[in-house]
Amino acid sequence: MKINGKHYHTIWVKEGDPKTIQIIDQRFLPFDFKTQDLRTLEDAYISIQEMWVRGAPLIGVTAAYGMYLGLVNLTDPSEDTIQNMAGYLASSRPTAVNLRFAIDLILDQIKKGNSLQEKIQIALDTANQLKADEIENCRLIGEHGLPFIEAIAKAKKGDTVNILTHCNAGWLACVDYGTATAPIYLAHEKGIKLHVWVDETRPRNQGARLTAYELEQHGVPHTVIADNTGGLLMQKGMVDLVIVGSDRTSANGDVANKIGTYLKALAAHDNHIPFYVALPLSTIDFTMDDGIKNIPIEQRSEDEVKYIEGWHNDEITRVRLTPENSPALNYGFDVTPAKYVTALITEKGVCKANKDEIGKLK
Amino acid sequence: MKINGKHYHTIWVKEGDPKTIQIIDQRFLPFDFKTQDLRTLEDAYISIQEMWVRGAPLIGVTAAYGMYLGLVNLTDPSEDTIQNMAGYLASSRPTAVNLRFAIDLILDQIKKGNSLQEKIQIALDTANQLKADEIENCRLIGEHGLPFIEAIAKAKKGDTVNILTHCNAGWLACVDYGTATAPIYLAHEKGIKLHVWVDETRPRNQGARLTAYELEQHGVPHTVIADNTGGLLMQKGMVDLVIVGSDRTSANGDVANKIGTYLKALAAHDNHIPFYVALPLSTIDFTMDDGIKNIPIEQRSEDEVKYIEGWHNDEITRVRLTPENSPALNYGFDVTPAKYVTALITEKGVCKANKDEIGKLK
Repeated sequence: MKINGKHYHTIWVKEGDPKTIQIIDQRFLPFDFKTQDLRTLEDAYISIQEMWVRGAPLIGVTAAYGMYLGLVNLTDPSEDTIQNMAGYLASSRPTAVNLRFAIDLILDQIKKGNSLQEKIQIALDTANQLKADEIENCRLIGEHGLPFIEAIAKAKKGDTVNILTHCNAGWLACVDYGTATAPIYLAHEKGIKLHVWVDETRPRNQGARLTAYELEQHGVPHTVIADNTGGLLMQKGMVDLVIVGSDRTSANGDVANKIGTYLKALAAHDNHIPFYVALPLSTIDFTMDDGIKNIPIEQRSEDEVKYIEGWHNDEITRVRLTPENSPALNYGFDVTPAKYVTALITEKGVCKANKDEIGKLK
Repeated sequence: MKINGKHYHTIWVKEGDPKTIQIIDQRFLPFDFKTQDLRTLEDAYISIQEMWVRGAPLIGVTAAYGMYLGLVNLTDPSEDTIQNMAGYLASSRPTAVNLRFAIDLILDQIKKGNSLQEKIQIALDTANQLKADEIENCRLIGEHGLPFIEAIAKAKKGDTVNILTHCNAGWLACVDYGTATAPIYLAHEKGIKLHVWVDETRPRNQGARLTAYELEQHGVPHTVIADNTGGLLMQKGMVDLVIVGSDRTSANGDVANKIGTYLKALAAHDNHIPFYVALPLSTIDFTMDDGIKNIPIEQRSEDEVKYIEGWHNDEITRVRLTPENSPALNYGFDVTPAKYVTALITEKGVCKANKDEIGKLK
């Protein structure tokens, strides 16, 4: 997707310098656009741990390149050293499933190499392939979601299609296209008139900061709203469909996503508006039957509620929002019951959010 | 209610100096507690216009005292001058119904006075009475709402009752007790163990700033949450009842309140949690039959979404949250359909949110 008119991925091998990986440093978005050079395993560790990169797919790809960088700089190429590298990198964000998956993929593939040089080449090829796969998966999600937008555009006879999204399931969380945003970008490319309502997404404001930035830079019409506003817009007929991402979906179709998603699903249901969840198959937990009961909900620091970051005097400034002695509680996501999900959109196709249909995707 | 251990109202006649009215200057809450002296009509105008005081009941009482201050400082006591004073003060917040009501009340009452001195005394007495009435109305709302909390406390065998509220329908918007908070304060006074989930209430953060401050200063256990969080808490059984205020309620029971209220009503309904609206009868529009269709929704500046105020380096600091070129949309409230309202709690008693029962309150 485009930033300032130029096509970008969130991560790439530096042109003319294959021992350097470059990333968009997302800490300063949307206020400042910076890239960073990653040259070592440590650089990759820090970029994941300190959230220069974020979003499950991007974390995975960064970890794969991180293992490659570790091998490039290796002085002792013993199996022990490589395992230690892997353990170190995996500890950068212990709960990210894609992180461990990507590292294990590299560990597995480099076994095929006999020399260190061969292992290095295999690691780079594997990371590049993982990156390409992530892009293709997102593009396919886009292809499968596009008909829903096209159908509404047709029904509205070319009038603007209004789409509401929550949090950032955009290309900045992936490598390109995004998940929830992929159908939006593809529809935009096809010239369908659309407009996106961007939920601010307190407390970390991924919508106001990242989704709005993505859409603005790529030229997609959009408007930022407080998380409280979506219900009213739906009541007033100002939303045609909702598309969100998912952190984890159970085999029966319950969808864990950023906190507040459930409230939008309720409002969509109450106003007969379709509510779609776009997700890679890798986030479906085929072994879990009841997401409401069983998906654990991450509790994060109360400081994310008590303080907020914004732009002031040309720098990122953190201000306190609450009384000094008032406690706060911060759950990272909620679970939307399957009955409120119109359909799941995956890279393998679309299905209803129920056990039978989800099972067919396996 | 108490601030720093001392009992306060939001407005009062200065002790030993009846020509000065004092208010809590709410612009700096919860970061800094300041009071202001109002000595002139202009002072009252500015305090209302610049939102040193806010909340319909408090605006009304401030306007009544403002008319008194105008009379106290009058050099030309002609009918024209008094009418001009009234017109000037009414223009401080043109859409506030209580403001016009309070001014008209003073204008009407001072007709009974023959001399300016008599008119001044009548204005002061009337303002004092209006203030007393506002306190009593809130206290009665508290009395009528208290049994709902008591019943849950009894059912839970003394376990903590968890109440969720949205925005600030607290005593800072009134003179004492508040509306939605009145049953909470009365239950707290009776020793019922309770805890309040305080919705942050973006974009203006009245929950995080004012409701949290009120509860914290009065010693009521509470926790601030992002507006996105309430649905999950209800799913997890962490909310026993919801109480909110109302800006305007139609004769059929549709409730206009701060944007986001509707989403909490949907979540309460989905989780079989009672959803109460506490309101003075003066906010019921007995002439309006369909609130969803007919209550106009105020649209406010997009800057309230794009920027936020917080505390930084010992001063209130405004930071930007969104990309510079992303537009934002800011509706002030939404309308909760009557079918999601368990009951209305008024100073005259409790009723179901339907035309027949509401009509009996008239």
